[in-house]
Amino acid sequence: MASRRAFRCEIPVRFGDIDQAGIAYYPTLIDHTHDAFEEFWERAVGIPYPTVLLRDRLGFPMVHLEADFRKPLRFGDVLEMEVSVARIGRTSVTFLYRAFVRRGRRPAGPEPAFEVRATTVCLDMRTFRPKPPPPRYRRLLEVHLRRGTP
Amino acid sequence: MASRRAFRCEIPVRFGDIDQAGIAYYPTLIDHTHDAFEEFWERAVGIPYPTVLLRDRLGFPMVHLEADFRKPLRFGDVLEMEVSVARIGRTSVTFLYRAFVRRGRRPAGPEPAFEVRATTVCLDMRTFRPKPPPPRYRRLLEVHLRRGTP
Amino acid sequence: MASRRAFRCEIPVRFGDIDQAGIAYYPTLIDHTHDAFEEFWERAVGIPYPTVLLRDRLGFPMVHLEADFRKPLRFGDVLEMEVSVARIGRTSVTFLYRAFVRRGRRPAGPEPAFEVRATTVCLDMRTFRPKPPPPRYRRLLEVHLRRGTP
Amino acid sequence: MASRRAFRCEIPVRFGDIDQAGIAYYPTLIDHTHDAFEEFWERAVGIPYPTVLLRDRLGFPMVHLEADFRKPLRFGDVLEMEVSVARIGRTSVTFLYRAFVRRGRRPAGPEPAFEVRATTVCLDMRTFRPKPPPPRYRRLLEVHLRRGTP
Repeated sequence: MASRRAFRCEIPVRFGDIDQAGIAYYPTLIDHTHDAFEEFWERAVGIPYPTVLLRDRLGFPMVHLEADFRKPLRFGDVLEMEVSVARIGRTSVTFLYRAFVRRGRRPAGPEPAFEVRATTVCLDMRTFRPKPPPPRYRRLLEVHLRRGTP
Repeated sequence: MASRRAFRCEIPVRFGDIDQAGIAYYPTLIDHTHDAFEEFWERAVGIPYPTVLLRDRLGFPMVHLEADFRKPLRFGDVLEMEVSVARIGRTSVTFLYRAFVRRGRRPAGPEPAFEVRATTVCLDMRTFRPKPPPPRYRRLLEVHLRRGTP
Repeated sequence: MASRRAFRCEIPVRFGDIDQAGIAYYPTLIDHTHDAFEEFWERAVGIPYPTVLLRDRLGFPMVHLEADFRKPLRFGDVLEMEVSVARIGRTSVTFLYRAFVRRGRRPAGPEPAFEVRATTVCLDMRTFRPKPPPPRYRRLLEVHLRRGTP
Repeated sequence: MASRRAFRCEIPVRFGDIDQAGIAYYPTLIDHTHDAFEEFWERAVGIPYPTVLLRDRLGFPMVHLEADFRKPLRFGDVLEMEVSVARIGRTSVTFLYRAFVRRGRRPAGPEPAFEVRATTVCLDMRTFRPKPPPPRYRRLLEVHLRRGTP
């Protein structure tokens, strides 16, 4: 388990993601971390995010976000977005996104083009108040806890 | 009244609106017609769209849209977005958007850079079913009926 | 070939696609047709759109768009976006998008939730002037010409 | 000057900004800080951002961003976005955004609904390399240096 590879999903940099400077517009990259978040719930955790919200009445709104943008992204780049859980607090869950880039046929390099550390709070959607994630959620999220330093 | 100038609002073409081809990405322009739609309700009709939705429980979802894109738009262009009502049916309202462009200090030219004709249906948001717009709405919208062609 | 099934790709309706009315915001759906357009070039035509633009210096900007929105889309719906070519003119190419919806485990129904007919013009990106699509492009696009009425 | 009020501009929360949870989608709020950034250059610094990029060939891409989201934002809220300069380094400029919220007729409260601290690097757009901001830029930005804490 120590060597388990973190969940990854592919997100292409789109034509409309590019800005006046010719690179991907960073608010769009933040938007893509939410795409990855939704893929993570569906394919890694095993509870699709619509089910989290609409059946289990839980939400994970953003409370604190830190992002580092290290390399510009171009049209045609494919993001291999790695999603892991950095920390599970009493009512908070911190997710870590690392975007590795595939350009053309070369495999993605070892250095992420950008990294986002995102602290969410587990919210009861009926009361809009924080609550500890239910045991099943905690257990499923713990599987994706990132080992070692982030 | 025949010569009344239609409602206009200003919407700048933003840094992030630009795409890989160096011009404004057309889905973003469609998005900007909705910004103009919201300004129109607030400043021309006199009922802010949040009030329409949340107090009066009406919505005007899009059912048919036709758009003509005539000139590419660049970063720094300012859209003078003209909004008028092309037709009020039994339960439908068709809006017309014409985007005149101001580039630098020159006033906007007489030819729109793009034009959108958008047919919405008046919806009862409690039942999600079409209904005729209430008389007050009809009256306020009729003021902005576009005379003559298109 | 007459019965060849048109190209389809899957695009999930995302958390952020939803608007104040609780359904997918239509400018975002238009944006998703461009995602499908890019997938179409890469996987159906066989020339990724970055190659079209950056190597072959061609672009296909939108000149006329018609859209019909028939059913509201919800968070968790998956769009099976069908892309075909409706018409190839001298310098124009018209694409047809039909969005079939998969909700939960049921297969997508036979009626599209929305349909977009989009006329683009083939542009020489060096001069920003229309030009006939090169023979190779015409040939590859003709394969996806939609038979019968649209 | 010590009591000079920082630059503010108004940005309404739009119909399409709302997400499945019924509040403004946070990547859209990040996008709105860029709208405020562009307004800041035009109206506070006095050099419109298109001029910065296209005439002076400078860019200020994001390298590090920290955001705190304290209160959910609803459709109809108006953001009074305050923009100031937190720090000018050798080649970096850090901007501070604080979003005060006006709901209905009440004036905006003293606590920001969200806050973004954004470190950009001054880039020579011809070489895509960092360079110290030209003296005129440094002078104009220093005027908006935020005094005291954060």
